[in-house]
This record gives sequence, structure tokens and C-alpha cells, in this order.
Amino acid sequence: MKINGVAYRSVWLDADGWGVRIFDQTKLPWMVEELRLTTWQEAAHAIRSMQVRGAPLIGAVAAYGVALAMREDAGQLDAVLEALAETRPTAINLRWALDRQRAKLHNLPAEARAAAAYAEAAAIADDDAETCRRIGENGLPLLQEIAAKKGRVNVLTHCNAGWLATVDWGTALAPIYMAHDAGLDVHVWVDETRPRNQGAALTAFELGAHGVKHTVIADNAGGHYMQHGEVDIVIVGTDRVTRTGDVANKIGTYLKALAARDNGVPFWVALPHSTLDMRVRDGVAEIPIEERSGTEVTELTGRTADGRIETVRVVAAGSEAANPAFDVTPARLVTGLITERGRCAADEASLLALYPEKA
Amino acid sequence: MKINGVAYRSVWLDADGWGVRIFDQTKLPWMVEELRLTTWQEAAHAIRSMQVRGAPLIGAVAAYGVALAMREDAGQLDAVLEALAETRPTAINLRWALDRQRAKLHNLPAEARAAAAYAEAAAIADDDAETCRRIGENGLPLLQEIAAKKGRVNVLTHCNAGWLATVDWGTALAPIYMAHDAGLDVHVWVDETRPRNQGAALTAFELGAHGVKHTVIADNAGGHYMQHGEVDIVIVGTDRVTRTGDVANKIGTYLKALAARDNGVPFWVALPHSTLDMRVRDGVAEIPIEERSGTEVTELTGRTADGRIETVRVVAAGSEAANPAFDVTPARLVTGLITERGRCAADEASLLALYPEKA
Repeated sequence: MKINGVAYRSVWLDADGWGVRIFDQTKLPWMVEELRLTTWQEAAHAIRSMQVRGAPLIGAVAAYGVALAMREDAGQLDAVLEALAETRPTAINLRWALDRQRAKLHNLPAEARAAAAYAEAAAIADDDAETCRRIGENGLPLLQEIAAKKGRVNVLTHCNAGWLATVDWGTALAPIYMAHDAGLDVHVWVDETRPRNQGAALTAFELGAHGVKHTVIADNAGGHYMQHGEVDIVIVGTDRVTRTGDVANKIGTYLKALAARDNGVPFWVALPHSTLDMRVRDGVAEIPIEERSGTEVTELTGRTADGRIETVRVVAAGSEAANPAFDVTPARLVTGLITERGRCAADEASLLALYPEKA
Repeated sequence: MKINGVAYRSVWLDADGWGVRIFDQTKLPWMVEELRLTTWQEAAHAIRSMQVRGAPLIGAVAAYGVALAMREDAGQLDAVLEALAETRPTAINLRWALDRQRAKLHNLPAEARAAAAYAEAAAIADDDAETCRRIGENGLPLLQEIAAKKGRVNVLTHCNAGWLATVDWGTALAPIYMAHDAGLDVHVWVDETRPRNQGAALTAFELGAHGVKHTVIADNAGGHYMQHGEVDIVIVGTDRVTRTGDVANKIGTYLKALAARDNGVPFWVALPHSTLDMRVRDGVAEIPIEERSGTEVTELTGRTADGRIETVRVVAAGSEAANPAFDVTPARLVTGLITERGRCAADEASLLALYPEKA
């Protein structure tokens, strides 16, 4: 998608053909700063420190991390796969991408691994962009239907599942970009998404850069707007969907799903195939939830009126904070899933009908 | 309650017997700064700008505002009552306190009004402190019961309904203070409470100053902790309770009530009689919800590592924000009400049994 009219992806190869470029998303929206990754450790750091985030993008950057490692020393494949897998625990796309690299590289002689790893990383990135475009196409009819009935479409989304969270297009935001480009009157309620404010910082930035109408709200406000008929549909992304349709996503998603159910608002989850984890049945019991540093809650970074970037503590001195990064929305609260193969109900039979090869 | 071992109320008369002292709660927790109010306009400003906040405290400060006005010119009673009533739209205690002043002063000769207004304001403040103490006593058994079963008691609360929101003790926090003082192992999950962070700033400050164990969490996290059995009970305050038991409280309360219901966690609301609005039946449809400035969402104030207080923008440049300050939790989601007269179910019959004079 575009920033100031220039088309970008969120990860791409540098002009020299081997360095990997990303945006430092911890600096967005204040600075649009590109980073060049030249070692797998830098790729691991980028994932761990959330310079890149979003389940599909994490997978693509991890795949490029493997390529960087193979360029350096093709003998370290297993160690690097293991280390990269440990950078973030919840998003399943990370493991999926690493498994793809493992399958591709495992039986290759050392001297062939680097080129193959770059090719596979590029394929993963291209696949993701195309997958997200199809998710957009498959979600678009939901918005067209609402627009046909009532004109303006009010979508609520949580966190950032836009092009900055994938390689291009996004998952939850892909149908919104398509609806906007098709001339629908779309307006997005953007959950701020504490503690890291990916909604206020990234989703608002993305939508604003593309010209999509939006309003940032505190995470607390969505239920109120649903009670008053101001939300037509909720669309969120996800970091892992179980065989039974349970949805792990950014902390707070579950609360919005409950409010949607209580108010008869459809709650849709957009995902690529790589986010499915068919080994897990009970999301709440089985999906590991990353516990991040409490300082992400106690401290906040933003821009002062005179343009300085400052980090301030917002919690009373001496008080500790806890910071679970994700929660699990049970399938019973999910109206349906939007995938690159079409839409389906959030249950095992429907998922297997769409993805028979995953049985 | 105490700050550094010194007992305070949140509003009190100055040594000269007529100036009104408050804490500037917009500066907490960074600075414990007292303000002296000497005109009713200053009292109105303190309420509007949230230097004082919390439904019961707003009522007490408004009552003192009337006293300040009567001291200046007893002929302006009606105009001042009207102006003070308009400082905040949602909390019903404000109107209740002003109605008490009106009833007391209306038929008095001008020269008698100032003394009577001060006496009535003092009575309102004393009543509130005693009322909150009784709320604490009536809520305490709920926590004792949990402690008897499982040792530690994990309470989740939203916003600040502590002594800083009332004259003393608090509403939701009163049972917690009593449980702590009685030696129960109480731990409080403190919702940050965006956008104004009254949980992170005020509730954490209060609990810390009193020595109560607590952990600040993003507003998004409570549902996750309830799913995993980490919350035994939710207790919140309220700005208005309808005849039918609907509860207006800080934005986001409704989402926690939904999560509590979904996970079988009891959801209790603590309130004094002055928060009851028997004229209203349907909270969602009838209670006016204050829409505050979007800058409360887009900007945040905190303390830098080197001790400066800075305000930073946290939302992408150019993006707007909306900011409804309250939401309404339907009575069906409320386990019960904790009042100064005892506990009751959140329905008309139970409320009238406790408050027959309000029929």
C-alpha cells in the first residue's frame, strides 16, 4: 500500500539483493524510518523488539532471517530455526514460515542453501501479499451488503491487522481498503489498543495515509458504540486460529467479541492459511499467551507539541503492571472467518471444508 | 484515608473557615498539590476540568461551591445552582447535592443563606464519608467469603472509586480497604482506565499509599484474567444507577461486566443512595453520556525518567478521536449492588425494599 503516494511493502530486499529492509514500526507514526537487516540476529531482534509485528509479517521476516543466516553459515540451520522460533510465542505464522524453510533447506547441500532460502523467503512474502489481496476480495461483500442497506459502513477494528502487519494489504484491513477503493462510504472505529497503541499509532497512520475515514477511540469505548448502533461490523486479524475456530489475537479482542455478541453485531476474523493451527483444539487452555514487560503498560512514548519524542510514565510510582499480549476469543463468539479461500464459520467442519489438506 | 501516614479527606474547609481545599487530581500521582477554591466559579472549574472527579466528590464540591456563592451574593442562588448543575452531565450525585442545597436555602432570607449553605455542604461531606464507611462494611463479607474459600482474594476494579472519588473511604474500594485492614490477603487488578488513566494514576496511587497489593493492567486485559480464573470478583463504582438497576459508570465498565458474566465472576457495583436516579428506567436509552474532548484520547501526560511532566501525542498525526466518558451496564449483567443500607439485587423491587422512601 502507499505512503505519500509511494507504494511499499513492509519487508523487501535491498538494492544489493541480500540485505533485508523493514520499517522500524516502533518509530511509527512519528518517523517513517527504514532499517537494513544484515544478520539473522538482527532479524530476531526486529521480531522480538516489535520493530516488525503482525503475525504474517513476523513469518516473512523470520524467513528472511533464515536466508541471512544461510548466507553467513549454512551449517547453522537447525540452531537458527530454533532461535528464531523463540522470538515470539503466540503467532503461529512464525513457526509455519520456519517450517517452510526447514522443509526446503534441510536436504540441500550447504552451498545451495543461501540461494534457496532467499527464494523461499521471497515466495513466502509474495504468497502473503497475494493471500491478503484475496482476503480483501472475500471480505468485501460483507461491507457491500451493509452499504447497500444503509449507506455508510461503520467498521470497528482492534490492534493493527493492516498492511504493516502483513507484507501488503493486511488481513482485517484488506476488505476495508478494497471497499474504500470501490467508492463505499467506509468509516473505521480504530481501537487505540493499549498497551502498545498499535491502533492509535499504526492503524490510524495506515488508514490516514490511504485516505480512509477513521476515528480513534479508547479500547473501553467500543461496547458503548455497539450499544448505540454505531458499529455495523467488527473485523479483526488473528495470531492463531485453532482447529475448532478459537481465535488468539491482541489482548482485548475477546471483550469486543463479547460486546458484539451482546448487541447483535457481526464479529469477523480475517486470516491467511498460515495462521491456522490444526494441532490445537481448545484455544483458551492450549495457546501460550506471551507475557510482555510491564513497562509497556507503565510507560508510553509519544510526540510533544514541539516535536520531541518522549517516553513518560503514566502509572503511579511504585505500582507494578502485568502485560499479557494476547487473549483468546472462543469460536462461539465468532460470526465467521475471512480467508484467502473464502468465508466460513468458525468451526472444525467448515475449516476442513475450506482446507481439506489440513485434515 | 492516608497519604504518607497523614489522614486526609478529598475536600475540606481551610483554616479560615470559608475557603475550600481540594487536591488537584489532574496532577496526581506526580504531585500531591492542594488547591484553595474561593469562588463558585473556581468550584465549577474544578469539577469541569476534573481537578475533582468521582460522582460523590463532585456532589460535595458543588455543595461547597453553592456555599462560596452565598458568601459572595446570596441573591444568585438559582443562577449558581443552574450553572453548577451543568458542569458534568452524567453523575446524578451532582444534582442530588444541589437539590439538597436548594431545599435548604430556598426559603431562607439572604443573610442566613451563607451559614446554612456551609452547614449543608459540611453535612453532605460528613454524610458521604459515613455512607462510604458503611458501604465498606456491607461489601466486606463478599471478600471474607472468598478468602475463607481460597485464601487470596483477587478483585478487579475499573476507574477510581476510592477515597479520592468520594469524601473518604471510597465506594468500590471501601470494602477492599476494610478487608486489607482486617488482615485479608487482598490483591487488586487495577484497570488503567483510558483515556484519563484514573486507575493507573489514582487507584494505584491510593492503594499503594495505603499498602494494598495491586497490579495495574491495560483495560484490554481483564477478560483474559477472568478466563484464566485470576479474578474472583469485580467491584466498581457508578455515576448513576437507574430505578431498574442499570449502571452508568466509566467507559469500559460494560465490557468488564460482559466478561464477568461470560466467566461466572460476580460483578458488584458499590454506590451511595445519592447515586440512585429513580426517574430513569432504561439506562442505555435515557442516561446522557458526556462526550469529552478527543484530545484526552490523542494526548497523554506523564513523568519522564528525569522527572519532567510532559504531555505527548500518542495518535498518528491528522487522526481524530472520539471520547464518550461513560457507558451503561444493563442490570442483567450486575450481580448486585453494595449500598450503605446493605446489599441488594440490581432490580426495582430490591432497590425499593432497601429505599422505600424513594418509591
